[in-house]
Amino acid sequence: MNEKPRIAVSVGDPNGIGLEIALRAHETIRHLCRPLYFVGYDLLKEAAEKLELQIPEPFDHTSPSPSCSIRPGMTTAEAGAYSFSSFKKAVEAVENGACDAVVTLPINKEAWMKAGIDYKGHTDALRDFFKKEAIMMLGCEKLYVALFTEHIPLKEVPKSIEKEKLVRFLLDFQRETGAEKIGVLGLNPHAGDNGVLGNEEEIITEAVGEANSRFPLFHGPLVPDIAFSPKMRESFTYYVAMYHDQGLAPLKALYFDESINVSLNLPIVRTSVDHGTAFDIAYLQGRSVNLQSYIEAVKAAIAMKRRRDQRS
Amino acid sequence: MNEKPRIAVSVGDPNGIGLEIALRAHETIRHLCRPLYFVGYDLLKEAAEKLELQIPEPFDHTSPSPSCSIRPGMTTAEAGAYSFSSFKKAVEAVENGACDAVVTLPINKEAWMKAGIDYKGHTDALRDFFKKEAIMMLGCEKLYVALFTEHIPLKEVPKSIEKEKLVRFLLDFQRETGAEKIGVLGLNPHAGDNGVLGNEEEIITEAVGEANSRFPLFHGPLVPDIAFSPKMRESFTYYVAMYHDQGLAPLKALYFDESINVSLNLPIVRTSVDHGTAFDIAYLQGRSVNLQSYIEAVKAAIAMKRRRDQRS
Repeated sequence: MNEKPRIAVSVGDPNGIGLEIALRAHETIRHLCRPLYFVGYDLLKEAAEKLELQIPEPFDHTSPSPSCSIRPGMTTAEAGAYSFSSFKKAVEAVENGACDAVVTLPINKEAWMKAGIDYKGHTDALRDFFKKEAIMMLGCEKLYVALFTEHIPLKEVPKSIEKEKLVRFLLDFQRETGAEKIGVLGLNPHAGDNGVLGNEEEIITEAVGEANSRFPLFHGPLVPDIAFSPKMRESFTYYVAMYHDQGLAPLKALYFDESINVSLNLPIVRTSVDHGTAFDIAYLQGRSVNLQSYIEAVKAAIAMKRRRDQRS
Repeated sequence: MNEKPRIAVSVGDPNGIGLEIALRAHETIRHLCRPLYFVGYDLLKEAAEKLELQIPEPFDHTSPSPSCSIRPGMTTAEAGAYSFSSFKKAVEAVENGACDAVVTLPINKEAWMKAGIDYKGHTDALRDFFKKEAIMMLGCEKLYVALFTEHIPLKEVPKSIEKEKLVRFLLDFQRETGAEKIGVLGLNPHAGDNGVLGNEEEIITEAVGEANSRFPLFHGPLVPDIAFSPKMRESFTYYVAMYHDQGLAPLKALYFDESINVSLNLPIVRTSVDHGTAFDIAYLQGRSVNLQSYIEAVKAAIAMKRRRDQRS
C-alpha cells in the first residue's frame, strides 16, 4: 500500500462512549489512515452536541441505515440494532474491498439481545459471518492472551475443554501470530495438582502434546495463578487461556489502557478496543474517556493488513 | 509483648524449598522474632549439607517426630507425613501458648494425599482443627484478596455460590480486616451481563445487599476482568474473589514476590508464604529462592499478634 489504508470504523453502541472516542481521536487517527465511520449524520450531530464537540472536517462517514437517538447509558433495542448494523456494514466494506480493515468500538450485548441479535459479541458474529473459527486475542506488545472459550457462563467452561478443538485452536493461533513460544494455561487451581483439584488438565496435556508433534513450541498446562507472574512473563508473551477472566483479569491488571482486541483466523483484519461501552460515564461532562486502546487498535489493524499484503 | 514474639515455623515439604528458605532467612528473621522451627536435627543437617549451608547458631528447633530423608523435587508419602506433622505441632504450640503465632512454609498437597492426609491445604486443615470457617486471604499492603472458594475443581465453583454462606463470609472478612471498603467479584464474564452470561450474580447481589444492611461498605458484583485494573485499584485494596484463580492470578501478576497468605477468622494467628514448594528448583545449585514472601509473612504474623493483644 502506497497510500494510507482505508479503515472501516464501526461506532459501537450510540448510548456508550464509542462516538465520543471516534470524535475525539479523529485528529490522531487521520494521520495514520483514512477512516470511514459507519454512522449517520443525524446521530453524529446529536452526539457532538451532547458532548459539546465539533464534528471534525473532513470526517468521512456513511449511514448504517436504521435511525437512532441517543439515550446516554441506557440499554435499548434501538441502539443495539444500530451498533449491529454499523458493525455489519463495516465488515462488508472490508469484504468487498472498499476498506482494508475494520476497527470496532464497543457494543452492549444486552442491547443486541433486546434488538433480537443473538450473537454474544463481535467475535461470535464474525465467526458466523465467515463460518470460520475466529480466535479472540487480547493484549498489547508485552502480553497477548487468546481465549479458548469466551462469552459463556463459567459453569459451561469445564465441559467445553475438548481435545481436538484445542489442538486446532493452538495450531491456528500459532500460525496467525507466528509466536515462537506459547504458554497454555490449565483449567483448575494449581492446574489440577495432578488430579486432586480437577482433571481437565489431562485433556489439555494431550492437546499440548499433539500440537507439539507439529510445532514443538507449546508449554503447559501452566498453573493459572502463577502463569502471569513477572518471572513467567520473562518466558512468555503469548498465552492461551481456557476462559475469559482467566486471561483477561491478569492482562487488564497489568496493561489496561494499552490493550486491544484482535480477531485472528478470519479472511479480514479486525481489531477493537479492549473495553466496554462505559455507560456510567457516557456523555457526562468532566469524565475523560481514554483514547489509547482505540488508537492502538487502529495501529494494529494497519500493521496486520500490511503484513498480510506482504505475505500474499 | 515486651520481648520479641515467639514464632512457630512449620518447614513445609522437605523435598521442596522450605528448608532452604528457613536456613537462609534465619539471620533476618531472628532480628524480628524468636523463631522455633518444627524440624528434626537429622533432616536439618541433611538439608544444610545438600545446600552447602551452615546451620545457623542459635537455631531453635523441635522435631515433629516422624523421620524423613530428602528426595529433592519428589512427591513422597514420607515427606507428606513430615510436613503435616511439622504444621500440626507448630499449630499446637500456638494453641497451648508456647508460641505466639504460626508461619508456614509450603507443603505439597499430593504428598499429603499419598500420606493419607485428606486436607486440601493448610487452611482446609485449620478449618477442621478449630471447627471454624477460616478465611484464606492473600496479598500485600497494596492489594488483599480473600477467596470465597479455594482448592476445589473449577467445575464445582458455580454451585458453591450460596447466599447465606457468602453473607457470613463477607461480614467475617470485614470484621477480621477492619476494611472500610470491600470489592466483591462476580462469577461470570462481565459479571453475567445481566443474566446473558450466567446468573450466579443474582445470588452475589443479594448477599452484598444483605451484608450492606449491616455494614454498608461492600461493592459488587464487580466485573471480574476489570476489577483489578489500575483505576479500580485506586478504589479498592480489599477484594473477595469467588474462586482461587480469579483472585490470585491478578494478584500474582502484580505482586508476586511480596504477597503472603493469611488465615483469618481463627483463634490463632497464622500466616504463610504465597508460593509453592518449587520442586523444580529445590536443592539445585545456582537457582536462587526468593525469601521476601517468607519475611513478609513473619512480619505480618507479628503485626497481627500485636493487634490482637492490643484489642484484648
